[in-house]
Amino acid sequence: MAKHKDKTSFSRRALIAGAAGALGSTVLGDPEQAAGQSVPPQDPTKVPGAPPTSIGARSAHVDIERTVSRPYPSASSGSPLQDLNGIITPSDLHFERHHGGVPTVDPTSYALLIHGMVDRPMVFTLDDLKRFPARSQICFIECSGNGWRGFRESNHREEYTPQDVDGLTSTSEWTGVPLTTLLNEVGVHPDASWFLAEGMDAAVLSRSIPVEKALDDAMVVYAQNGEPLRPEAGYPVRLLLPGWEGNANVKWIRRLELADQPFMTRQETSKYSDPLADCTARIFSFAMDAKSIITFPAYPDTLREPGYWEISGIAWTGRGRITRVEISADGGASWADAELQEPVLPKCHTRFRYLWNWNGSEATLMSRAHDETGYVQPTRQQLIDARGAGTAYHQNNIRAWEVRADGSVVFGLGT
Amino acid sequence: MAKHKDKTSFSRRALIAGAAGALGSTVLGDPEQAAGQSVPPQDPTKVPGAPPTSIGARSAHVDIERTVSRPYPSASSGSPLQDLNGIITPSDLHFERHHGGVPTVDPTSYALLIHGMVDRPMVFTLDDLKRFPARSQICFIECSGNGWRGFRESNHREEYTPQDVDGLTSTSEWTGVPLTTLLNEVGVHPDASWFLAEGMDAAVLSRSIPVEKALDDAMVVYAQNGEPLRPEAGYPVRLLLPGWEGNANVKWIRRLELADQPFMTRQETSKYSDPLADCTARIFSFAMDAKSIITFPAYPDTLREPGYWEISGIAWTGRGRITRVEISADGGASWADAELQEPVLPKCHTRFRYLWNWNGSEATLMSRAHDETGYVQPTRQQLIDARGAGTAYHQNNIRAWEVRADGSVVFGLGT
Repeated sequence: MAKHKDKTSFSRRALIAGAAGALGSTVLGDPEQAAGQSVPPQDPTKVPGAPPTSIGARSAHVDIERTVSRPYPSASSGSPLQDLNGIITPSDLHFERHHGGVPTVDPTSYALLIHGMVDRPMVFTLDDLKRFPARSQICFIECSGNGWRGFRESNHREEYTPQDVDGLTSTSEWTGVPLTTLLNEVGVHPDASWFLAEGMDAAVLSRSIPVEKALDDAMVVYAQNGEPLRPEAGYPVRLLLPGWEGNANVKWIRRLELADQPFMTRQETSKYSDPLADCTARIFSFAMDAKSIITFPAYPDTLREPGYWEISGIAWTGRGRITRVEISADGGASWADAELQEPVLPKCHTRFRYLWNWNGSEATLMSRAHDETGYVQPTRQQLIDARGAGTAYHQNNIRAWEVRADGSVVFGLGT
Repeated sequence: MAKHKDKTSFSRRALIAGAAGALGSTVLGDPEQAAGQSVPPQDPTKVPGAPPTSIGARSAHVDIERTVSRPYPSASSGSPLQDLNGIITPSDLHFERHHGGVPTVDPTSYALLIHGMVDRPMVFTLDDLKRFPARSQICFIECSGNGWRGFRESNHREEYTPQDVDGLTSTSEWTGVPLTTLLNEVGVHPDASWFLAEGMDAAVLSRSIPVEKALDDAMVVYAQNGEPLRPEAGYPVRLLLPGWEGNANVKWIRRLELADQPFMTRQETSKYSDPLADCTARIFSFAMDAKSIITFPAYPDTLREPGYWEISGIAWTGRGRITRVEISADGGASWADAELQEPVLPKCHTRFRYLWNWNGSEATLMSRAHDETGYVQPTRQQLIDARGAGTAYHQNNIRAWEVRADGSVVFGLGT
């Protein structure tokens, strides 16, 4: 009887410990400690586990989150690239970028207006959009300002993680309606060549998009990784332009206006354009060029001993499939091919892996991505030669990680 | 000044409404209502949105969750198939099945023992496992008891949703170490043909697995959809046997023991085996046969008018790729090919779509999956003819949805 009572009492303590654990407290200790303290069971086979739940939660041992990299209201937060595996980004860790905060949009009154140079201006409710034949596509979205910390020398710091350097890119499976379907409904005039995409956030973010992208692979999407869009990803509906810079994939979209010229909005003139040395600017560049970053080893990792370590990271291109990723351990003097992990999907993060035998001396690790157009990820100097050092966008230069003789790794400026 | 004060006051009310919304309260109303009530802004462009967050949350308008289908402690919960799009299941909605609750496992003391008929018995910590070259694979896991509500006539109810019928299957991108890598480390004896996989849950769930599966595509995984495994999915480490019945993918794995025969554990003798009419039993069947289910339209959907409706659902097979899914609207008298959505990956949910023109009369919708071995999903009668009606497992018979003349849809028994 005493034994039975002990078992009951132990179980209750374990359950209390479990509840505390769910709140972030995870102290290991003696199972005979007093009840009410956080004591996970020493042997999980000896206590009943937790019951099923309607929505799961991460283990209290898992510390994984976005970091806010720009302040509110023109804000962003980056995905923890160094903590992620494979290619899918969990929706609650997808990077954020918004210019007036995340709006609260009521899906029951949601409406998308398509008008301008069309035969029949129309308004589509969320139910209307969901009734059309749908399509899903796994692809990345990247902020065109992603990587600014890896470009200018004045921005460089050794203590940058992959999340700090390139966290404004994420991959999801998106589901929605091909934009061509909606344009067929409204009847686009033959001479309409652009459309304005306008969001219903406080910034009313607006971009001009060539109609040819709509005829290619643009979608109006309402789901992300199986579930409805997250609020910060554009709930209930966003534009998806696979492979094109993030801000053009307008979130919380409320209006598409067809026209025969671009609208020259703030976000495509003063922002998201690249000033060039000849005092002109590169505008409407749209497609994100091929890029890659090693996510292990990286700051703040330490290689605890010489020997084999698997270098791993992600590569992506807005122009189709990644065809090759090369790895250098000597700062770009020599290169070897990494393995690309299947599935290698177009306009999607591609995981690469390379088994490296570290000899214990200093090393500079780099990755270099190639895509199916023949494009090769440039060095920092090549990018500066082409565009100058003035731009705040589209910095896809080769990233470098410096491995020190003690095994510690810091972010390098590259060549 | 008064106007400015009004704006400030309105903003504060909107923020309060946002906070209330996060707790599930989503009342629409007049923006001039008193503060403290839940009032989303009528026009989101006129109020600042919410700031970025370290971990995102779903919109308060989204109601999507698992349903508990078996009581604790031998418990399960099903994925909301009818609410999901594409092929990926969000990790917090991945189905659950556990026989002694979800254990709390401390990752810092975690260890995997591999012993038995090996040259060098070894223990691997979580850090050890993460140091080996990794691999990711997108594949489904399905409970072998999934679908029992769609098989026996005595279990049938018209008010079953896709989640009720087949919710115990989900797809994730899994990352870990190929089991061959670990077996090479310990040196498996040439005459070892089976291994025991043992969990550290309160049920100490154990299954015998042929070594040939380890040499094929088995993995020891620690990540799911990019992030660490969820507790109910086996945190910190589970066995992954792509395409094989869920319980054999042992979660919270602590021990692999190599042997020259199966161990005949409870979960492979009294459970997860199929009694046959001749009083023998089908055991160690492992691979899940090809299966499909229409997730729209389904109970409790109602088609509000005749016309085009896109039939959509998922198909999967444990024996490679889905090659074809057929749709019938007349209870199996005639069939037409559905479109398979790319990417079509092996041992993975495959999304199918078929644009159906409903004429407004009664209809019986069915889907029939084919896989690359030539296997065709059987009718209920074909399955009963082959195995009898006694089994509680492996019921992959063709599902039916009855569309009534008023557009309402209920679950059918099939043929």
